[in-house]
Amino acid sequence: MSALGPIPAAVAERQRLDVDLGERGYPIVIGRGLLSDPDCYRPFVVGKRVMIVSNETVAPLYLEALRAGLAAFEIEQVILPDGECYKDLATLNRIFDALLERRCGRDTTLIALGGGVIGDMAGFAAACYQRGVPFIQVPTTLLAQVDSSVGGKTGVNHPAGKNMIGAFHQPRAVIADTATLATLPARELSAGLAEVVKYGLIADRPFFDWLEDRVPALRALEPAALATAIARSCQNKARIVAADEREAGQRALLNLGHSFGHAIEAGTGYGTWLHGEAVGTGLVMAAQLSARLGWLEATAVARIRALVASCGLPTQPPTSLSSARWLELMAVDKKVQAGRLRLVLLKGIGEAVLTADVDPALLRASIASAQAGTE
Amino acid sequence: MSALGPIPAAVAERQRLDVDLGERGYPIVIGRGLLSDPDCYRPFVVGKRVMIVSNETVAPLYLEALRAGLAAFEIEQVILPDGECYKDLATLNRIFDALLERRCGRDTTLIALGGGVIGDMAGFAAACYQRGVPFIQVPTTLLAQVDSSVGGKTGVNHPAGKNMIGAFHQPRAVIADTATLATLPARELSAGLAEVVKYGLIADRPFFDWLEDRVPALRALEPAALATAIARSCQNKARIVAADEREAGQRALLNLGHSFGHAIEAGTGYGTWLHGEAVGTGLVMAAQLSARLGWLEATAVARIRALVASCGLPTQPPTSLSSARWLELMAVDKKVQAGRLRLVLLKGIGEAVLTADVDPALLRASIASAQAGTE
Repeated sequence: MSALGPIPAAVAERQRLDVDLGERGYPIVIGRGLLSDPDCYRPFVVGKRVMIVSNETVAPLYLEALRAGLAAFEIEQVILPDGECYKDLATLNRIFDALLERRCGRDTTLIALGGGVIGDMAGFAAACYQRGVPFIQVPTTLLAQVDSSVGGKTGVNHPAGKNMIGAFHQPRAVIADTATLATLPARELSAGLAEVVKYGLIADRPFFDWLEDRVPALRALEPAALATAIARSCQNKARIVAADEREAGQRALLNLGHSFGHAIEAGTGYGTWLHGEAVGTGLVMAAQLSARLGWLEATAVARIRALVASCGLPTQPPTSLSSARWLELMAVDKKVQAGRLRLVLLKGIGEAVLTADVDPALLRASIASAQAGTE
Repeated sequence: MSALGPIPAAVAERQRLDVDLGERGYPIVIGRGLLSDPDCYRPFVVGKRVMIVSNETVAPLYLEALRAGLAAFEIEQVILPDGECYKDLATLNRIFDALLERRCGRDTTLIALGGGVIGDMAGFAAACYQRGVPFIQVPTTLLAQVDSSVGGKTGVNHPAGKNMIGAFHQPRAVIADTATLATLPARELSAGLAEVVKYGLIADRPFFDWLEDRVPALRALEPAALATAIARSCQNKARIVAADEREAGQRALLNLGHSFGHAIEAGTGYGTWLHGEAVGTGLVMAAQLSARLGWLEATAVARIRALVASCGLPTQPPTSLSSARWLELMAVDKKVQAGRLRLVLLKGIGEAVLTADVDPALLRASIASAQAGTE
């Protein structure tokens, strides 16, 4: 995959990318103050009614601004409890309850206002309600703005595995208002940066280099840096998704750090580690295993660990999980095909590869060293 | 839509139709004794593992035969309770539980062995498990063989409405073994015939005429008659679905009788009336309303009522529902667009039309007359 080229200098305050998926393609609009701008929604709402799906944390902060932007439509809303632990079939059903109670037909557009959990659940509800209604993502966390809003993956967790139940359902549009990051807890901002770093690692070395300088500016919410990082991440994800919408091949690269990360999240109980924290550590672990295979220089591993740490993210896995439990948790992951554990590893910074060749003994040793802090 | 032409004379014992949906196209194989024939499955199973989804009624009768046909694969199974009342998210989750407990990956093929409820639930589970795995329909009721197995509609009910939660997900193949009908209760055979009659009414007058003669043979399970009726129904449905996979227009014609039927099912409590019984009465009610609009001759209404009755189906709606409740139930139905009730009615036998022009007062009067038996 060819790189995106050097990072441009200053970027416009409002940017628009188009995700090229043929008739399911859609725009991502990024900028400050989009939330209450009617022009962001008008072209994408189908019919006269919208159902806003949000949570108890985000709604008090941003629901009124969004309602102002949607004033031209008949507005319904459902406010869910906040947290990954509510990303389940029972909470999903509350969206269906609300839609049916309000007699919403197929011409109702769902609007997801919140982070990745809200986006995944509202998107899955939109995929399933009457077998499919339109939806718009309005992500309010950095993680959701750079990652969850792109790619059409929607779904809920099962006690036995994260995102095990879901659908591919593309939004009509993604409206990413960077002003909403002002109220995001620092820990969640860091979690979002894990996915930003991931894009540099997978296939964009200029972006990785840029991040080594700009992480402090991002953590300080400097507008131009944020817009650049979000747009560049979305561009990276969009071109991978566009090339492979149904996750047959290249798209699997997006799982860099995620097999380890999912195991951390599931093994410690969802919600203990934030998803992005687990991914941050997972990126380091993927780099360490890559080095153990002789694919990556020790200096590269050190740079990756340093960048992840500079984002305010953990770089060492929990010691509470036995190595047997690790392998067990990684084996339920969706990367298993025909019983073989497939992993995304690194042949260099900006060069991720999918492999099915990992010796379980080597994997076990790498995990143990990472836990001991000796890798 | 052009008709299919005259009904052919004797048909081959094993027939194959191809549903033309491009890369999502699939074959429907119809015949006696297919259940345990490995050749029916081998080309369509992806990977080495299958998960059979069946229920407590069907499994004791046919699970062993199916397992014999699938002997080349690693077989898992999950047996659900039987009945429309279990077509819900909680029972669906038991399929996910089983898949995760057995560590099934994305290369597992789900096999639905049972009637429409099992097919809809297993198909929806296949649509959602890890965002989509392959599945094969092995329908064991006439209703499922002629209707539920074609069209890719999958889903579950919500207390506020039937099939409100679901997905479009096409099977890899449909294997319809007519020998399984030998154990089908007469009442369910009749329910299946309601959908058969529906195809004649929508767009196939020669088939309607043929049915007026052949219903006794079908109720006596005469093999050639069954094969002809199933194949012809599937052909009718397949050509409508192929023309309109996502239900934008023509496909809505398949709902002939169903708006009324859904109201009967929901209003009396799911499971009191069989789906096909409600549809049978719904066909008569659609004909009656069409006559009230001046679109259909009284003689045609009489022929339709007589054919439905000859199938062993009810032709008169329950008197327990008030007319307000009827309209309320019909308004939740998926046929509502922009607040207008869209209905499928008849301009003749073999000529169904979708209309949004029905005066609610006329509809109310027609329902009242049908309830009173004076229509």
